Amino acid sequence: MTTYDIALIGFGGVNRTLAELIATRGERLRSELGFGLRIVAITDLRLGSLVQPEGVDLSVALKLGGENETFAAHGGSADTNNESVIRNCTADIICEATFTNPDDGEPAVSHVRWALESGKSVCTTNKGPVALRGAELSALAEQNGVHFEFEGAVMSGTPVIRLAKKMFAGLKLNGFEGILNGTSNYVLGRMEAGLDFHAAIREAQELGYAEANPAADIEGYDVQLKVLILANELLDAGIELKDVHRQGISTVTPEDIRKAAREGRRWKLIGAAGRNPDGSVTAGVSPVALPLDHGLAGVSGATNAVSFETDLLGAVTISGPGAGRVETAYALLSDIIAMHAARTEVSANA
Amino acid sequence: MTTYDIALIGFGGVNRTLAELIATRGERLRSELGFGLRIVAITDLRLGSLVQPEGVDLSVALKLGGENETFAAHGGSADTNNESVIRNCTADIICEATFTNPDDGEPAVSHVRWALESGKSVCTTNKGPVALRGAELSALAEQNGVHFEFEGAVMSGTPVIRLAKKMFAGLKLNGFEGILNGTSNYVLGRMEAGLDFHAAIREAQELGYAEANPAADIEGYDVQLKVLILANELLDAGIELKDVHRQGISTVTPEDIRKAAREGRRWKLIGAAGRNPDGSVTAGVSPVALPLDHGLAGVSGATNAVSFETDLLGAVTISGPGAGRVETAYALLSDIIAMHAARTEVSANA
Repeated sequence: MTTYDIALIGFGGVNRTLAELIATRGERLRSELGFGLRIVAITDLRLGSLVQPEGVDLSVALKLGGENETFAAHGGSADTNNESVIRNCTADIICEATFTNPDDGEPAVSHVRWALESGKSVCTTNKGPVALRGAELSALAEQNGVHFEFEGAVMSGTPVIRLAKKMFAGLKLNGFEGILNGTSNYVLGRMEAGLDFHAAIREAQELGYAEANPAADIEGYDVQLKVLILANELLDAGIELKDVHRQGISTVTPEDIRKAAREGRRWKLIGAAGRNPDGSVTAGVSPVALPLDHGLAGVSGATNAVSFETDLLGAVTISGPGAGRVETAYALLSDIIAMHAARTEVSANA
Repeated sequence: MTTYDIALIGFGGVNRTLAELIATRGERLRSELGFGLRIVAITDLRLGSLVQPEGVDLSVALKLGGENETFAAHGGSADTNNESVIRNCTADIICEATFTNPDDGEPAVSHVRWALESGKSVCTTNKGPVALRGAELSALAEQNGVHFEFEGAVMSGTPVIRLAKKMFAGLKLNGFEGILNGTSNYVLGRMEAGLDFHAAIREAQELGYAEANPAADIEGYDVQLKVLILANELLDAGIELKDVHRQGISTVTPEDIRKAAREGRRWKLIGAAGRNPDGSVTAGVSPVALPLDHGLAGVSGATNAVSFETDLLGAVTISGPGAGRVETAYALLSDIIAMHAARTEVSANA
């Protein structure tokens, strides 16, 4: 039985939940999936770093988090030491779940690069490196004979990238449109129910839907990164962030919403990309008043959805959670499962 | 490059479209998927049988269909000869697309059995053999070291069975609910728009949505078979047709529909199954007045959808076409693609 050694970069909600899943379900995963997982290193901006090649004691690591507590008191260091840990630890797979920096993707881009350069596979839930450096990092993974997976960067654990790549084999994908941000979708729904814009945002923040910066959700920056990822991964668009037109929902007025309701329509923030007759791809994010019988009009609250336009099946739509600690931790697990399957296939074709 | 030899059992809309796809897209499929497809035998109740181990001339076969035309005038026989063709032809894979007999699954069950017994893999879009003899036929396939795939038996080419089996690895599936019959869904939608029951059915038939027997759609027999397939395949329910409670939409009155509309609800024919605390599975088909914000309430017209209830992701829903010649022919192609992938994995693990 194969055991993959794992390093967790960032020990916030997502990687902490992944560690809990491994701790509580490790045996079941082993018997169902045919491989084991062992955490051999953790780094975190606040906690420092812990490297234990024989396996981190999760019962200790998962309890840490009090004020001023660091790994220093538990056999590790108060320093993060990301580069040296990532390059030198014994992990086969690096799980990168630090914060998304939408300007240059750093420091996550460097985390991924160090891992791939040192022959380690990477899974990440971090949009930044995938959206801004995806092609470069995928090429680097291929050069080094390792994997770079990032299902969780778009719709947490709901399969979107892998659905299109694995389940649509033999189909031609002409484009997609999706609801890719739960906060803005929730806010539009509450405005439809009569709340004003700012009250709806406050409510979304209280429910924990909003990301660190509300503008990222409301002004479409978050969706812009996700559209960029999907367009490049699934449509081979070869485009950059500036090529994805962006308009958020702050321009949608209560009167717009009432008018749409009278006309049997509903406002949604839609991220979309489509292939043009010349082969180029047009991509963008903007609020759209969808007719109520549109496949995405019924996607409510914090649920996300993507509708793919295919040649032989027409529209195929998947909807599910777009965020959440457990849901996003599962995305990392699904990436590792995909790596395991791909390794099996590689050894078959060798 | 591997080439799979194919036999088409039943040369109606679905297998004819598969032959067209192979004829018109064979080269693209070859370069994208890494294998070729060659049709070496066709049988059909009306046309007879044609066996050509060097490859059937599709330009001839696809033109046949005039009154009293048979394969006899084109190097074949006016007799169907299913058993001898299936057992003795050189095909690697049998594509079974004859009619669904909901009583005993015959003659399709025999077609599948003959193929598997003679060491041929089978893909089918036929609900009968899968629903009524699925476990037995899957065991027979395993005994003979071949594949039995049937994605198209539930939602045509929209991936449902394979989605749950491949994309939800590591999740626990607790149940599902779905809209699995386009005709009844269309009829309920038209009744909501004001048509009476019989006018709505006539309209659905004119649009080609209805299956051969309208009762199969309207009284829930079609959905009952699909629920049985999904419950046994995805929840290991080990149940039989009689265990799937069935109620159709003929009992839903215009007043029921108006009352639901007043209450913010919408009638849908829901096929569902769920795991009970004791591990058993309860499965059934019945009309349900869903609240409008339910994930399946917005699935309109001939679209089908299944919502899976998972432990880590909550509800994940896929919607897409549930019928159609091209859509169902693609299901067969997706089954062949899955067989090719599985063979690669088998040779890796050997």
